[in-house]
Amino acid sequence: MKGILLFAALALAGPAPAQDRSPNEPSPSEIVTAAPDGDWAEIAPDDLLVMELAQGRDTGKREVVIQLIPPPFSQGWVDNIRTLAMAHWWDGTSVYRVQDNYVAQWGLGEDKQPPEWLKEVPEADYAPFWPGARKTSDSVRRLRERWWKSDPYAAEVDFVDGFPVAEGNRQQWPVHCYGMVGVARGTGDTGSGADLYAVIGQAPRQLDRNIALVGRVIEGMEYLSSLPRGHGELGFYTKDEARKQMPILSVRLASELPEKSRPRFEYLSTDSESFAHYANARANRHDDFYKVPAGGVDICNVPVPIRRVEPAK
Amino acid sequence: MKGILLFAALALAGPAPAQDRSPNEPSPSEIVTAAPDGDWAEIAPDDLLVMELAQGRDTGKREVVIQLIPPPFSQGWVDNIRTLAMAHWWDGTSVYRVQDNYVAQWGLGEDKQPPEWLKEVPEADYAPFWPGARKTSDSVRRLRERWWKSDPYAAEVDFVDGFPVAEGNRQQWPVHCYGMVGVARGTGDTGSGADLYAVIGQAPRQLDRNIALVGRVIEGMEYLSSLPRGHGELGFYTKDEARKQMPILSVRLASELPEKSRPRFEYLSTDSESFAHYANARANRHDDFYKVPAGGVDICNVPVPIRRVEPAK
Repeated sequence: MKGILLFAALALAGPAPAQDRSPNEPSPSEIVTAAPDGDWAEIAPDDLLVMELAQGRDTGKREVVIQLIPPPFSQGWVDNIRTLAMAHWWDGTSVYRVQDNYVAQWGLGEDKQPPEWLKEVPEADYAPFWPGARKTSDSVRRLRERWWKSDPYAAEVDFVDGFPVAEGNRQQWPVHCYGMVGVARGTGDTGSGADLYAVIGQAPRQLDRNIALVGRVIEGMEYLSSLPRGHGELGFYTKDEARKQMPILSVRLASELPEKSRPRFEYLSTDSESFAHYANARANRHDDFYKVPAGGVDICNVPVPIRRVEPAK
Repeated sequence: MKGILLFAALALAGPAPAQDRSPNEPSPSEIVTAAPDGDWAEIAPDDLLVMELAQGRDTGKREVVIQLIPPPFSQGWVDNIRTLAMAHWWDGTSVYRVQDNYVAQWGLGEDKQPPEWLKEVPEADYAPFWPGARKTSDSVRRLRERWWKSDPYAAEVDFVDGFPVAEGNRQQWPVHCYGMVGVARGTGDTGSGADLYAVIGQAPRQLDRNIALVGRVIEGMEYLSSLPRGHGELGFYTKDEARKQMPILSVRLASELPEKSRPRFEYLSTDSESFAHYANARANRHDDFYKVPAGGVDICNVPVPIRRVEPAK
């Protein structure tokens, strides 16, 4: 019985077994596995934020790793975040809001005020000017044309330096996909970066250009997405639920950690042919399980492949 | 300090406070609250599946309510599901797979075989023939034109009898949004309905037309979405994690329950002007918080409003 169960379930999520498919149609994960090392790019230790949550009885260590977004996006807020991490400012704060199909939010406790010396960043930085130049090769561009159909929110969407972005009106901006990390803010301000959220549901793209995105979770996402939901307004934990707040033990830049214990990650270069093939396979899967290829794919349904690599020796 | 914290967080998710916005631009939730009773449609008790999970130390009763999809969609599988519920077939089974940003899946235990007398449903029923007729009024249609821009997966998308659907090639099919419930299957079969999954992440629209959708979770979604993720292949719990499987105490059709304890729900009719206004507000929010209206919206980012109503007296 167990064999059938597993088989049925494997089939739901994955490609059909390799021997049943045409060798001409590798699955997305097969394409990623076959990508040459040259198509992978290392993430700089200054761009990695390591957040350690309280240990669970069941889970052992719970580490969430965030990749900060590269220029030209959100660098004022990213600078603030690096400063806060180096000041160990988040140690002892908590995840205090979890709203189903929306966000998990952390940072500022009731009795902690963000430092006054953080940068104020203008709204204009949500969506910087973009001259319209592309650095992708012709072959990659041709492949892309096979999988981008359209986007419900923007004139164009693309990937830039490993991040999903949208374009229009000579602007380019990062988009709110699952796992993306943004800066919580009030009305009339742009937020400092002291309070952050991660998207744990359907991409809330209405927030694009209205709030700063500063990175994405690349490991340990489940420690945020499976937290108990809060039942106060908008997913805040109520007073009675206060003990559900997940304590944050520490947040560090990987570059602060001793070289031997630094986690190291690579992402599949979004300018590579491997990535274009991978995205194309996500848009046009066709095998014994996927009998009707979608013929298109949402920008948020092409998660950028990430892999952990061995620490330096 | 607490005031500022709450304010910042409220603003992230919600509209700006009512007094700050133009009275001409009500928020999506304000539109839903103002919808006249005539715009709400009751869900028949035969279309409600009540799944009771094991109690948590913290949560008390954990009830997940599923609305089964109406004709012309997936009725062979829906019949099987009603039959299985009336046979109390799921009592004592479990949620045995939780894959982050994908699905939670339940049903068939290792030692339970689905009854042989279930219907086999043909693949053609994933996407039934659709003659192209619409029953929406002109005024609703005009409103709709303001918010549907495009869809990455289908020629057209719409709502039919309370469910999100896509259209093309004279076919119409339900789509995989957050919370939608589908029929797990193997390669080379269409599944019986004995094993079901709910979407707990970004809409996996590549499954559309490749697998049957039979309904959606309308209450208690968090009891599935916040379950610990499995670490076996594709999110199955490993042997070591077996104790994390969430026991299912019972699954019943609401129509089987004594009338006084039946839960009752209504959905906002997707043919109503209220719904069209609500979707338009989701696509074009513009207030003190949302300074850049999205100008469009994904079909899966317009959750159909549901409300619980008092049991019959």
